[in-house]
Amino acid sequence: MNDKVLIHHGSGGLLMRNLIHDIFLRYFDNGILKSMTDSAILVGKSGHFAFTTDSYVVDPLFFPGGNIGKLAVCGTVNDLAVSGAVPLYLSVSFIIEEGFSISDLEMIVRSMADEARMAGVKIVTGDTKVVQKGKADKLFVNTSGIGFIEKRYTGLSHGKGTKPGDLVMINGTIGDHGIAILNARESFNFSSGLSSDCTSLNKFIQTILRNTGEVRFMRDATRGGLAAVLCEFAEKSGLGIEINENSIPVKEEVRGICELLGFEPLHLANEGKVVIIAGNQSGSKILDVMKKQKAGKNSSIIGRMVTDHPKKVKLITSSGGSRWIDLPSGEQLPRIC
Amino acid sequence: MNDKVLIHHGSGGLLMRNLIHDIFLRYFDNGILKSMTDSAILVGKSGHFAFTTDSYVVDPLFFPGGNIGKLAVCGTVNDLAVSGAVPLYLSVSFIIEEGFSISDLEMIVRSMADEARMAGVKIVTGDTKVVQKGKADKLFVNTSGIGFIEKRYTGLSHGKGTKPGDLVMINGTIGDHGIAILNARESFNFSSGLSSDCTSLNKFIQTILRNTGEVRFMRDATRGGLAAVLCEFAEKSGLGIEINENSIPVKEEVRGICELLGFEPLHLANEGKVVIIAGNQSGSKILDVMKKQKAGKNSSIIGRMVTDHPKKVKLITSSGGSRWIDLPSGEQLPRIC
Repeated sequence: MNDKVLIHHGSGGLLMRNLIHDIFLRYFDNGILKSMTDSAILVGKSGHFAFTTDSYVVDPLFFPGGNIGKLAVCGTVNDLAVSGAVPLYLSVSFIIEEGFSISDLEMIVRSMADEARMAGVKIVTGDTKVVQKGKADKLFVNTSGIGFIEKRYTGLSHGKGTKPGDLVMINGTIGDHGIAILNARESFNFSSGLSSDCTSLNKFIQTILRNTGEVRFMRDATRGGLAAVLCEFAEKSGLGIEINENSIPVKEEVRGICELLGFEPLHLANEGKVVIIAGNQSGSKILDVMKKQKAGKNSSIIGRMVTDHPKKVKLITSSGGSRWIDLPSGEQLPRIC
Repeated sequence: MNDKVLIHHGSGGLLMRNLIHDIFLRYFDNGILKSMTDSAILVGKSGHFAFTTDSYVVDPLFFPGGNIGKLAVCGTVNDLAVSGAVPLYLSVSFIIEEGFSISDLEMIVRSMADEARMAGVKIVTGDTKVVQKGKADKLFVNTSGIGFIEKRYTGLSHGKGTKPGDLVMINGTIGDHGIAILNARESFNFSSGLSSDCTSLNKFIQTILRNTGEVRFMRDATRGGLAAVLCEFAEKSGLGIEINENSIPVKEEVRGICELLGFEPLHLANEGKVVIIAGNQSGSKILDVMKKQKAGKNSSIIGRMVTDHPKKVKLITSSGGSRWIDLPSGEQLPRIC
């Protein structure tokens, strides 16, 4: 093991998984944390609830499609939503560098309030710390959240019941957020049309759950991208996953920038994309419900669960070849979330 | 209003209160947040629960009596406990500067696990971000927490029922944490015996609640110290508060260092001190229950609620004079929590 924390420890890939296993799970030893779901699923007196936390350290704070505040609300709302929960309450905690602009803070706070209103959640408790100039990168935000889960959805985080032949679906183009952040930070000015997909998916997801059946598993594809979600789910389910490059929605600009800079769209972070594993019989119905909503108009069935290569993810390339997809093992992208 | 965030905006005093009112409450506009209690009190299907968040940015990370991890667990446990809740679940989120020592991280995580075990809470969900060298001050921790509250305790956060003649009590010496941090950071080496009072108070508080009556209000005296708690409660209750300098427990070393450096013990942060407002009739019983526990062996009745000077806090000095105590309005102490 390394003796220093590396930037890769935070990228959602293999190093991060090792850190979690070697340090956090070793000491914070309980079954709930060990299940490694997006939200902890807790049992209250009259039902189940979900609890989750995320800190946001994005640079730049403002980017096409959002800012750190909107991101923090969407991210925590989505972590609850993919657990099958209806998000209800958020906490917000700021760490602010001395000298930060009050009007920028106000803009961030306003967009958090707007996004919370749209998602139907309340920001009910908060905290503010100010650190000396140079001791933080402008502003960090933590949002934690609570949602209630109907009992019938409590298995969703675990993907129990997933079978060979089940479909792998996604609600639109991948990598938009990653490239938008990179473009904004590095001032590449590759394209003025690119913006983050940052959005709250709770209503989108609840509409799917309430109007279809056979949804086995959901996870939002954030850090580590689509690749991380698929690799982790293959590992967890014990099945293989086969995906078709041709079916994965990627914007032309995103694909172009990736080729130019040597990035892999599958590794890029998203902030409004959910991977859904669903029964084969219900696939077209689910796709239909997804496509009818704004957050899902470019939805696609991108692959399926297979028995051939347990715990491994295979990509059928557009040229008809195939290659294995691994958990990102280094820093495939500069820090973006 | 200032156009930049100042270090004083985070010190728990007047500037911070203004920031909360002018920005956060203005946009995050809901009744729960507006009640400005330590924890949000939420109504679930079968009872009430409390939800709170805090980010920790202490420098140095390790200090006599604890470290940032222990502090983060105690702080959130205490915020729930003073609301009358039984703390149950914590989230933990780290923001780590690239290059941070893994063994230091392990020490911090281990003491969080130990403190959580002692307090009887589970760390059920988490998050880790790594930022580039120079973009954070070594390590920041956010802990959010959930606890359940019996209905009969839900009024505690608001202090409803507080009457003139009610007693003001505290469970021991003030300022230990503030001076311990200052001493560790600045290497004054004033005294080797000083250590932070950092401790989880949930069992202490529950013992008081279950064995006595007439507890009207509780709050832990952290940033802004005893002064901030008293000033805010005077404001909130509409009554005056009179406290006696002679009755306020302050360690000799703390008093000495304060005199030397020009600090006011009432403004110093604590991490294991709770202010209790209680009915006059029950005062001796409560004091008795407090003193029998380790966390309260130096408990003291330090003053009472009065009608004379509504919303103002008066200190009767040891020399027999008196002076007003105000919400700390500048940076009376370097950042310590």
